[in-house]
Amino acid sequence: MSGTAMRASQKDFENAMNQVKLLKKDPGNEVKLKLYALYKQATEGSCTMPKPGVFDLVNKAKWDAWNALGSLPKETARQNYVELVSSLTSASQPSSQVEPGADRKPSAYETLEVTSEDGITKIMFNRPTKKNAITTQMYHEIMLALKAAGKDDSSVTVLTGNGDYYSSGNDLTNFTDLPPGGPEEKAKNSAILLRDFIDCFIDFPKPLIAVVNGPAVGISVTTLGLCDAVYATDRATFHTPFSHLGQSPEGCSSYTFPKIMGPSKATEMLIFGKKLTAREACAQGLVTEVFPDSTFQKEVWTRLKAYAKLPPNAMRISKEIMRSREKEKLRAINVEECNVLQERWLSDECMNAVMNFLSRKAKL
Amino acid sequence: MSGTAMRASQKDFENAMNQVKLLKKDPGNEVKLKLYALYKQATEGSCTMPKPGVFDLVNKAKWDAWNALGSLPKETARQNYVELVSSLTSASQPSSQVEPGADRKPSAYETLEVTSEDGITKIMFNRPTKKNAITTQMYHEIMLALKAAGKDDSSVTVLTGNGDYYSSGNDLTNFTDLPPGGPEEKAKNSAILLRDFIDCFIDFPKPLIAVVNGPAVGISVTTLGLCDAVYATDRATFHTPFSHLGQSPEGCSSYTFPKIMGPSKATEMLIFGKKLTAREACAQGLVTEVFPDSTFQKEVWTRLKAYAKLPPNAMRISKEIMRSREKEKLRAINVEECNVLQERWLSDECMNAVMNFLSRKAKL
Amino acid sequence: MSGTAMRASQKDFENAMNQVKLLKKDPGNEVKLKLYALYKQATEGSCTMPKPGVFDLVNKAKWDAWNALGSLPKETARQNYVELVSSLTSASQPSSQVEPGADRKPSAYETLEVTSEDGITKIMFNRPTKKNAITTQMYHEIMLALKAAGKDDSSVTVLTGNGDYYSSGNDLTNFTDLPPGGPEEKAKNSAILLRDFIDCFIDFPKPLIAVVNGPAVGISVTTLGLCDAVYATDRATFHTPFSHLGQSPEGCSSYTFPKIMGPSKATEMLIFGKKLTAREACAQGLVTEVFPDSTFQKEVWTRLKAYAKLPPNAMRISKEIMRSREKEKLRAINVEECNVLQERWLSDECMNAVMNFLSRKAKL
Repeated sequence: MSGTAMRASQKDFENAMNQVKLLKKDPGNEVKLKLYALYKQATEGSCTMPKPGVFDLVNKAKWDAWNALGSLPKETARQNYVELVSSLTSASQPSSQVEPGADRKPSAYETLEVTSEDGITKIMFNRPTKKNAITTQMYHEIMLALKAAGKDDSSVTVLTGNGDYYSSGNDLTNFTDLPPGGPEEKAKNSAILLRDFIDCFIDFPKPLIAVVNGPAVGISVTTLGLCDAVYATDRATFHTPFSHLGQSPEGCSSYTFPKIMGPSKATEMLIFGKKLTAREACAQGLVTEVFPDSTFQKEVWTRLKAYAKLPPNAMRISKEIMRSREKEKLRAINVEECNVLQERWLSDECMNAVMNFLSRKAKL
Repeated sequence: MSGTAMRASQKDFENAMNQVKLLKKDPGNEVKLKLYALYKQATEGSCTMPKPGVFDLVNKAKWDAWNALGSLPKETARQNYVELVSSLTSASQPSSQVEPGADRKPSAYETLEVTSEDGITKIMFNRPTKKNAITTQMYHEIMLALKAAGKDDSSVTVLTGNGDYYSSGNDLTNFTDLPPGGPEEKAKNSAILLRDFIDCFIDFPKPLIAVVNGPAVGISVTTLGLCDAVYATDRATFHTPFSHLGQSPEGCSSYTFPKIMGPSKATEMLIFGKKLTAREACAQGLVTEVFPDSTFQKEVWTRLKAYAKLPPNAMRISKEIMRSREKEKLRAINVEECNVLQERWLSDECMNAVMNFLSRKAKL
Repeated sequence: MSGTAMRASQKDFENAMNQVKLLKKDPGNEVKLKLYALYKQATEGSCTMPKPGVFDLVNKAKWDAWNALGSLPKETARQNYVELVSSLTSASQPSSQVEPGADRKPSAYETLEVTSEDGITKIMFNRPTKKNAITTQMYHEIMLALKAAGKDDSSVTVLTGNGDYYSSGNDLTNFTDLPPGGPEEKAKNSAILLRDFIDCFIDFPKPLIAVVNGPAVGISVTTLGLCDAVYATDRATFHTPFSHLGQSPEGCSSYTFPKIMGPSKATEMLIFGKKLTAREACAQGLVTEVFPDSTFQKEVWTRLKAYAKLPPNAMRISKEIMRSREKEKLRAINVEECNVLQERWLSDECMNAVMNFLSRKAKL
């Protein structure tokens, strides 16, 4: 596209800068880094700043992006900036212009699609191009959706993912978005967000069912231990590479996983980061049942619709009596895990591991 | 039989009424309802009473039975009454006249057969024509039998069923036999009975083994979580349709089942009422081992006789150290589950579900 | 050998007695009993002492050994004594003269081989001719090795066995070595040793992995519940015949086993002494993964070397958060189990069972 397009004027460039501010969807950290780099290249030329220290994650990422443009001419950078913004604007418009179906109001969520019918509220992770990685915004939206579903008149609530993945877990670019207080404040805020997020699962008052439509990673795996039933396609995998990232278990998995599968299987997942197939996860009790991918959606939803017809109070009270005894304990464990992670996130082991991951990803 | 019999006189009718009072075995609620209906039809003619409300279970059942006789003439009703009583009397006599075998004294139990040999006390549910459904009387007899077995000189105690079923669980006709205090008193009494019944399992002092000879339903499934070993024929199934009946888990299963099989499998059984095969129940840890039906009894009893020869104190003390830590907790959970059920039994959800079940059964 | 050798003089006999005192390795209780019997026969002739009571284990064992020599002539006994000592001395010399490899210092342990490389400290049970049965000395050495491994700079620690067995468990000849205080003191000392031994597993601060290279019995099985991962060859079996020996579960297995595999499977192992195959132990969650014997060592060590490269602090902290909540509870359970066993060891059931076992073994 850049080859055939006309040169972008300074006016085009300024318009593009204004359009960026009006984007309805956060374009994501990767795009933002690219925009930053093109802006700097367009306005200041090649990167001559000293390289930031390895622990200054955000500035390091910015520097990497800018520096990667090498000696790209200012005009080309300006042109690329305008085109990139243009592609973002056109990508965001069609979806916002689509007429919502008569049977449901436009979703109040940007990262989820939430629908309710047949006694079932379905909360679908909806960032398929990002493997449903969970951004800070998405954490907040899932909490809102769970709180609403807990109070609505549905019998059961379902979590599932749009596209090939269930969810690739915490969006690691969350780590690069540093607040003014620096890494310490970032770690503290993240621990609070995580704690509140997990508490929504602990406190959920009716049957909460995960329909795992594809691979699940990290926090999207650990929270399965707090769900009441887990149906998985045979294409799903279950992966918690916490040690690989210098981190430690969350979502109460340090308690629920050994309880569900015994310490010898839980250690291999949570400490050694072994990826399980759906059949393995089912044999170990994390998954309720596995279905062939070709019939997965049909079989699961037929079953869920039947379950949703059962007396709702009996189901809610049965869940209450099965889960209530552990609530206080789970809340305490959640706090403990978040405290440990808050320290972990500031450790060299973790910072280096996350940097390595992000830079490997950037090179691909 | 009614076609060829002579007309019953008023005298025959009165004799029959007296015989009913002398019956040694409770003929069961179904027969009692039939007797009631025939008596009313014989003495008052067709039912003209207004239909009772849906929550007045006993009167509704009585009204249904009487009303079902339509315009049956009084004399035919009287005749049918006399014949029904006659069949009950003759059915109850042979068994009471049978000479007990020289090798064992006549059982003190009406709903159980309890024997003791080779170091094993065997408590067999003995209502095969009723799928070993547990009546109020049977609850009391099982408690008595367990208390006696706990103190006798056997090494291990076995629970099993006579006939095709292990046990179809709580006899739902228990619900129709209302005391003077009405549903509230009924619910309270039932909760106390259930609590005491489950405490007998919690407190049982030596290895308690379930030999599951066929399908198991409801409380006969949940109590397996309190048994020390569970052997099942491959014909057995395991079904806890609590939600379907508007009820909630008992027998400490709200605690033992998630502990044994993890919450995601326990929920499907206890909340969604999924019926498990013997192999599934074994894979999930509820059942110790499954045997082909054709060799089930032989293989299991060979094994049990060998186990019963092991040092009995070592076995009792090993059970003590494995179970004692949880006793207080299990007792508290038992009380909690019974309290929740006491409320459940008075709920519209439960009353409607039980009525639907009984009326479906009546139509078959 | 005795047929061709010259008659041993009294001088040879006295030399042999002195050599016994200088033996570097404890020759084991069986050999010591044989030495005792030959010494008595050589100096006093045939056994004419009254047979000791069945509960005086040591004297009974000594009497049995002496009495078994029947009317063996004094000279032959003296000759046999000298030859037996000679074989012990020559057997102990080669190993002590072997030059240790340049890459590791000579082991400080007599019953273990402990090595450390690639981030892995390997503690290998090293009594292959005794199926790695654990003597009192070996208990102490394992404790020392675990304490050292917990503090060294390795990432993970491995327990494994040399030879065909992982370990045949507690060396029952431990029971025959009575202190001056008699059985009561013996039982008390054994309970303290057991408690301290198990505490080393409870407190171990980094991933502890069992590489089960063959059959495991008794305490070498129960301690698997305190390991973080358990890899087994398909040739391994898992056997805890506590009831058969009149004993009760240790190693916190009365708690960990029901938790891992549910009470119905745990009872069959711990109370009824059922021996599990490796596949069964894996299905029940005691074992992490089973490998074909032909590729076992290669596959497991490849995997362990990869795991040992993961960030060590993350692994230690993840283990800490998974295990720390239970430490106090496990310590209390350990004390409780040891107290129960201390009483068990003095019971008739246990004494008879152990005597039967030792005498059966002696006859083979």
